[in-house]
Amino acid sequence: MLPKNQDSESADMEESQTLDVVDINPCLLNIDYACRGSIPSRASQIQKELIQGDAKCFKKVVQCNLGDCQLLGQKPITFGRQILSACAYPELLNHNIFPSDVVDRTKLLLKSFNNSIGCYSESSGSEFVRNSVTKYIQKRDGYPADPNNIFITNGASSAIKMILYSLIKAYDNNIMTGIMVPVPQYPLYSASLSEFNGKLIPYYLNEADNWSLSKSEIERAITDGFTFSKPKALVVINPGNPTGQVLSYQNMVEIVKFCHKYKLVLLADEVYQHNVYDKDSKFFSFKKVVLDSGFTENTFTLVSFHSVSKGYYSECGIRGGYMELFGFKPELRAALIKLVSSNLCSSTSGQIILESLVNPPVEHDPSFPVFHEEKSAILDELRQKSELMHSLLGEIIGIKCNKIQGALYAFPQLFLPQKFIEHSEKESKPPDEYYCMKLLEETGVCVVPGSGFRQMPGTHHFRITIIPPLEDIKNVLSSISDFNQKLFKEFS
Amino acid sequence: MLPKNQDSESADMEESQTLDVVDINPCLLNIDYACRGSIPSRASQIQKELIQGDAKCFKKVVQCNLGDCQLLGQKPITFGRQILSACAYPELLNHNIFPSDVVDRTKLLLKSFNNSIGCYSESSGSEFVRNSVTKYIQKRDGYPADPNNIFITNGASSAIKMILYSLIKAYDNNIMTGIMVPVPQYPLYSASLSEFNGKLIPYYLNEADNWSLSKSEIERAITDGFTFSKPKALVVINPGNPTGQVLSYQNMVEIVKFCHKYKLVLLADEVYQHNVYDKDSKFFSFKKVVLDSGFTENTFTLVSFHSVSKGYYSECGIRGGYMELFGFKPELRAALIKLVSSNLCSSTSGQIILESLVNPPVEHDPSFPVFHEEKSAILDELRQKSELMHSLLGEIIGIKCNKIQGALYAFPQLFLPQKFIEHSEKESKPPDEYYCMKLLEETGVCVVPGSGFRQMPGTHHFRITIIPPLEDIKNVLSSISDFNQKLFKEFS
Repeated sequence: MLPKNQDSESADMEESQTLDVVDINPCLLNIDYACRGSIPSRASQIQKELIQGDAKCFKKVVQCNLGDCQLLGQKPITFGRQILSACAYPELLNHNIFPSDVVDRTKLLLKSFNNSIGCYSESSGSEFVRNSVTKYIQKRDGYPADPNNIFITNGASSAIKMILYSLIKAYDNNIMTGIMVPVPQYPLYSASLSEFNGKLIPYYLNEADNWSLSKSEIERAITDGFTFSKPKALVVINPGNPTGQVLSYQNMVEIVKFCHKYKLVLLADEVYQHNVYDKDSKFFSFKKVVLDSGFTENTFTLVSFHSVSKGYYSECGIRGGYMELFGFKPELRAALIKLVSSNLCSSTSGQIILESLVNPPVEHDPSFPVFHEEKSAILDELRQKSELMHSLLGEIIGIKCNKIQGALYAFPQLFLPQKFIEHSEKESKPPDEYYCMKLLEETGVCVVPGSGFRQMPGTHHFRITIIPPLEDIKNVLSSISDFNQKLFKEFS
Repeated sequence: MLPKNQDSESADMEESQTLDVVDINPCLLNIDYACRGSIPSRASQIQKELIQGDAKCFKKVVQCNLGDCQLLGQKPITFGRQILSACAYPELLNHNIFPSDVVDRTKLLLKSFNNSIGCYSESSGSEFVRNSVTKYIQKRDGYPADPNNIFITNGASSAIKMILYSLIKAYDNNIMTGIMVPVPQYPLYSASLSEFNGKLIPYYLNEADNWSLSKSEIERAITDGFTFSKPKALVVINPGNPTGQVLSYQNMVEIVKFCHKYKLVLLADEVYQHNVYDKDSKFFSFKKVVLDSGFTENTFTLVSFHSVSKGYYSECGIRGGYMELFGFKPELRAALIKLVSSNLCSSTSGQIILESLVNPPVEHDPSFPVFHEEKSAILDELRQKSELMHSLLGEIIGIKCNKIQGALYAFPQLFLPQKFIEHSEKESKPPDEYYCMKLLEETGVCVVPGSGFRQMPGTHHFRITIIPPLEDIKNVLSSISDFNQKLFKEFS
């Protein structure tokens, strides 16, 4: 019998009969994304209250919860924005506003987009842009790359989600697909594994050794993972989010060998490749390490991700990124093309900014002096901020923080008083979440609790971005310091 | 025992051991998207061959396979592009290039994006843009709308995929989730149902009655659907893609009542709402019909989709669109917010173009005269093209085509000679696919076979866009006519 509504033709209009939670995809309900969770939501609300004139003991909310540099005052790179504006309105090329290299690049880009950024591009991105990405990778690594292996996407997030979707055999009833993810992790990974019904196999980064990745720990983690899943891939975020570490070359070689040993696809989240501040650290791509180690496309499978949202561009809102496939059989690549085809293409604006990122002005180009100055100033300032953040955090009671080698974050450990932990447990809140909410309410400083990124059980952390202006960093850290002083007095 | 590679530490570099087709998500392999399938691929290849100087019996490929007006020469609306370029490079506001309303709007938009389009916006889109969308909907329908129910996305496709993902309980072993989809359909629907492991319940549009939707047919389809799935939603594309019909108000009322009767979520793909050419047809939104019929958010669940890629803007590459939720409980809306949060936000460029679409210049605004002229010219020309296409198709042997009331396509039926059908079956190709490939090879005209959209078994069609320049339409149709003459002679 068909389940019809009674009397439906004379529609009983009062009965509530819309979609219910039990009617929808249960995976949807498991998704959580802390960087935009309850604490950032409350921060927006407080900001509105302040505008409305509510009295608080602080004047503004400082958003240290998102790696969004322009939100905190960083200026965009002129070169990229000039090209984007000229591509959007080519009539501007007649106004003698732009340097000649911007004009030339705009013409090349427009040609590659069939004369208008309003046309769909190829599904994996314009061939011209993919060629520029290819040259960038070749120059970076000293190894060949192939534009057919480049997929341009609306930010790295959508590339990462696409690959996780593709790797997870969600409908295999016998055993779930396991994806090894570092803990602490960027919550896109846990959110996407919930979304696609994959199993997160946590491996713990070694906080005592500046968040390095230990061979014995990944061996322990996969042994554990095999008891509840079929491990399929290993995620590495380098430089680390939220942990700020830069992996050593030797550490990377170990990871590559480990992936080969267990036939894992290595997913290399390398969106912070331009954000290295520590003079003793250097960024190497996993592709280079894989090739240096003698592996080939027949013996190793790797996907690496990059983005315009971080580095010195920080064009978060434009949504541009790419992934490079390595070791993918043609039929798998073809399947991915079909997947992206149904979305038609990624945003041409994102493709344009990506192209300007991977193909920047070089010496003697008219745009080079301004570009060079902007880039250096941004990276120098981020270096100063990382040092200031680290040194000020080190002075605060109840906080211990590793050196910030790269990326845009510190992930300090909180050593909370036992009474505070008990108090927050009475409130049924994870202690670090309770701490962050109190910090926000009392100081206007918005940081994200470590529990949103996962952490070693029994430890507590928060993630704070290093990107506010230097003066704000001092004020923020002074607020946290006062807050902790008070908290330790109150709960000792 | 753990499945390790033997001798992995001394890595056997010769053995091919990368990811295999059997290792990946089987749903991925089922995805197909005809608008970018084998025929359009071959068309790109032929275009390259022509550029390389290969001799063909035609001079250029005419791409009638994608609803991409700017690809075929349509100019973008100046108002939107001026705002986009100024938002990208606000320094332009100092150059006295733009009308004052463009300057004012740019400033408002920049403020809503925290002063830079390089910042992440709210996950569901900037509040300012969602407010503009809300006002547009209110004005269109004469009913209230709520900015909290608006989600701005990278084109309508990603909104549609998000909702299908959310509705499909893919891991329910007992019974699959069924989604009723019109046949012929836009292949995004079949591709997404493959992607998310849902079940497509086809209902056939009535070709004999200008592709209308008959009550008895949807009743038949759902009765059938219940035998293999749990029907959850019904998709309507109005104006129709690929069919070009505009539903009558009365027909829409029947659909609404049907959805209420079976507690189906109505998914209203209304991206062609500005593309109505037939003087006897008029676009009504399903939201208006639902509310006119006396239903409320307690008694009806609806999602409607709109896009900047169609209409008179046709900004396909910019990727902007929105969905409006109706009748969604707060906890479901919250779950969708989490889903979009993990992608951070949609492209700010898409949001800007969307805002300019839903909030166009009005009389007495400095941009109004140009805007009005551009809009009218585009829509007038599309009307002429739809009439020309319909009348010329009607003169071709073996082709019968309904009136093109709206959208950007004709979907003529092909009455192929029996011998041709037998011949193509020998080649193991669907007859219409074989026809379209031959047509492409011999004339350079690229159309998409009806089998890519699904069609009534035993019938054959192709989809052709009405958007080439008028002169090209004449040439294209003359090529098809000659081709059919020859084909009917050869295979009679």
